[in-house]
Amino acid sequence: MAAQSLDVVGIGNAIVDVIAQADDGFLRRQGLSKGSMQLIDARRAEALYAEMGPGIEMSGGSAGNTMAGIASLGGTGAYIGKVKDDELGRVFRHDMRATGVRFDTAPSRDGAPTARCLILVTPDAQRTMSTFLGACVELGPEDVPGALVAAAQVTYLEGYLFDPPRAKAAFRQAAELAHAAGRKVSLTLSDAFCVERYRPEFRQLIEGHVDILFANEAEICALYETKSFDDALAAVRGHCKIAALTRSEKGSVVVTAGETHVVPPAGIDRLVDTTGAGDLYASGFLFGLTRGRDLAACGRLGSLAAAEVIGHYGARPETSLKELAEAEGLL
Amino acid sequence: MAAQSLDVVGIGNAIVDVIAQADDGFLRRQGLSKGSMQLIDARRAEALYAEMGPGIEMSGGSAGNTMAGIASLGGTGAYIGKVKDDELGRVFRHDMRATGVRFDTAPSRDGAPTARCLILVTPDAQRTMSTFLGACVELGPEDVPGALVAAAQVTYLEGYLFDPPRAKAAFRQAAELAHAAGRKVSLTLSDAFCVERYRPEFRQLIEGHVDILFANEAEICALYETKSFDDALAAVRGHCKIAALTRSEKGSVVVTAGETHVVPPAGIDRLVDTTGAGDLYASGFLFGLTRGRDLAACGRLGSLAAAEVIGHYGARPETSLKELAEAEGLL
Repeated sequence: MAAQSLDVVGIGNAIVDVIAQADDGFLRRQGLSKGSMQLIDARRAEALYAEMGPGIEMSGGSAGNTMAGIASLGGTGAYIGKVKDDELGRVFRHDMRATGVRFDTAPSRDGAPTARCLILVTPDAQRTMSTFLGACVELGPEDVPGALVAAAQVTYLEGYLFDPPRAKAAFRQAAELAHAAGRKVSLTLSDAFCVERYRPEFRQLIEGHVDILFANEAEICALYETKSFDDALAAVRGHCKIAALTRSEKGSVVVTAGETHVVPPAGIDRLVDTTGAGDLYASGFLFGLTRGRDLAACGRLGSLAAAEVIGHYGARPETSLKELAEAEGLL
Repeated sequence: MAAQSLDVVGIGNAIVDVIAQADDGFLRRQGLSKGSMQLIDARRAEALYAEMGPGIEMSGGSAGNTMAGIASLGGTGAYIGKVKDDELGRVFRHDMRATGVRFDTAPSRDGAPTARCLILVTPDAQRTMSTFLGACVELGPEDVPGALVAAAQVTYLEGYLFDPPRAKAAFRQAAELAHAAGRKVSLTLSDAFCVERYRPEFRQLIEGHVDILFANEAEICALYETKSFDDALAAVRGHCKIAALTRSEKGSVVVTAGETHVVPPAGIDRLVDTTGAGDLYASGFLFGLTRGRDLAACGRLGSLAAAEVIGHYGARPETSLKELAEAEGLL
């Protein structure tokens, strides 16, 4: 593994998305909580798929989407995640490499198939996700190459990694390796229910091991068990160096010990599918950071990347983010 | 097989599309002729896929897209086509049924995998297709249920069916069964190169066995070996009852022995990917016909359906065509 310098290495659940339209009645009948991610088993995945409308299959996974965004901005990156050596696994691998992101994690040969996420998009553009983790449960510390992590300015981890059994160890190992190499560690909280599942561990992690935290309003409030965004903001300020908190149409707020930047959202032509908005915000923010931009500029790059991905179905950019950012004078 | 009445039964190559962006230089380097469909073998499919950008997987196939459009307009339909009993085959089956189209063709258990079409979309929104026919080569007359064909007002056939070895026999059998039941037969010429491959057979078919013909400008000119659209139009007028000839941004011309209707294109908000434009034009036209509309109204329904599908990636509607048509006062 060559130690060529990289902007970001992302570690996450390697998932192929199956995106379909649905109405609120369908979510209710299926017992799904709008806007959330729930874990499902193979049988439930089959049953829900049978009831869903026609789908679009696209490579996804939170950190995978973020890495695709980094590449689209002109950054260099690598991805670590576990697929099976099957049809969807080959699709995931192809797509990640075709975006220009290095992806060398060995696929599993036996066991569960490549993970898929059934994403239901309602007419209000909200996405509701049901994830069958499949081969992701095979990810472990042995899949994290030390040289790769040491070579990246930022190691980016998704909170969803706490769900599969051994990925948590991979997560901790990556964070330790990154810090030992003088690199930065970034975490996204991923989902409010995910925060509920692992609150104490997330808080301990954030206080000791995370340099850049991403969360949306629901997630940061869940982390600090408050209904007040301002209270959550005050709580996180003392706990990690940089927190970038996204607030949908209200833009984002970036806080450090001494600074607070309120970042406006980017203008959008149309709102179709919010899947990947947070993932792409992280792309823009982290890319800006690796280029030495100030925090407000990082936030604006995040807003721009998020705005692109919510204008169409699917969680990865359809348009060159580099060109969009240049057109806006952000690069 | 219940003989419940249907609007349209479509027979075609059952294909999953893999859609990626590409520039003109990529097409040149890969030796691809822009706007055409070429057949490729498994090895070439793998090599081209390896070079392509990240993809979106969506069920496709010309007649499959048309049937999805019929369903989106509120029509009833069935589809006949051959997938393998594999991952992509299950995706294709799910999507067809999830649109509300009946699809009971038995999948193949052995042999080649489910067909895929590698679709490269250039910045001018043109699509260039490379098709690996896979399991489609297994389709034969035994897959055409007589009762189903007899139950449908129109049997719709794609010219691409002439490529796999035994589908031609299925095609002829379906046309005979339809006419024996007093039903209509419709054909799309599919592709200018496909017309070159089978010109004499297509002309013989059209003169004796086709009631409603669909073709674009390049295809109808290829059929009659002329460079003049007007000459091709004059030639086809005497050869089949109704010919609906599409001309991209110029709209379409619908001709019978005694009538000529020039149909304007529908307005579009944005042009992204022309894949499926002809397939969806056929949806609108045939749906209008099954509802007893006059030919000009059928053409306008065709234009409307085509306009929806070229506004986004993928060859099947993302929006209810019924609602769009109602909003335009066409239904």
